[in-house]
Amino acid sequence: MIEAIETDQNTGRDFTKLDFTKLDGLVAAVVQDAVTKQVLMVGFMNEESYAQTLATGFVVFYSRSRNKLWMKGESSGHTLRVVKMKTDCDRDALLIEVEAAGPGVCHEGYESCFFRTNENDTWVVNAQKSFSPTDAYAATKETK
Amino acid sequence: MIEAIETDQNTGRDFTKLDFTKLDGLVAAVVQDAVTKQVLMVGFMNEESYAQTLATGFVVFYSRSRNKLWMKGESSGHTLRVVKMKTDCDRDALLIEVEAAGPGVCHEGYESCFFRTNENDTWVVNAQKSFSPTDAYAATKETK
Repeated sequence: MIEAIETDQNTGRDFTKLDFTKLDGLVAAVVQDAVTKQVLMVGFMNEESYAQTLATGFVVFYSRSRNKLWMKGESSGHTLRVVKMKTDCDRDALLIEVEAAGPGVCHEGYESCFFRTNENDTWVVNAQKSFSPTDAYAATKETK
Repeated sequence: MIEAIETDQNTGRDFTKLDFTKLDGLVAAVVQDAVTKQVLMVGFMNEESYAQTLATGFVVFYSRSRNKLWMKGESSGHTLRVVKMKTDCDRDALLIEVEAAGPGVCHEGYESCFFRTNENDTWVVNAQKSFSPTDAYAATKETK
């Protein structure tokens, strides 16, 4: 149910814009499977990658280590189609519900990047791989 | 099923430690309801708040704006008990499944901080408030 559309007019704050100032031009973007509700990964977006995500309907991150935009799945084909996008009370984080094209989002071959669980202060792998990362990334390189 | 415990010995990397270097001493921490799988909020942890989270079994964040640790719920009573904690392939983000003590985590009175949805590039509130933030925070101040 739509409760209210908040604008400058009735709140004095602009809820049409995300706040990229708190994290040096970035916002954290949590990716969740729209159906299973499994959290698949966390990435970061700058204003340009956010704009491209809105324009294309597919998740585009900003890579801090490579200092460039990257559409998730551009190498593996495991793209993430945006189903719903939410922001939080501070407008400095995104929650993106997606339809995932591939068997997993993690470059290590797992359905979710969160495949390690803390057990007695040790990170234990307790998920099964859902695909071969070597095959997925090698195959796509040939077609690019 | 536990597939493997990865250590320095067989991978050359230390999976017992989180990587706090990528975000100036912080990691992003996604909080998810352990039962409903709803994503409730995103916060940040430094090493000390992470250690306190492990030690107490309750989510303790690091506040960037106030430059201090805060146990979520310390004012409102809406604490988050850790049920399961996961990290991602890069060990620079946490996914924490919790049991939430209160009717909601958001200081604006909603169950989840992600109460705004993008509709035609406008952020629209389409959730119902689950509690009165004024009452929740005022009541607790009296008991502190």
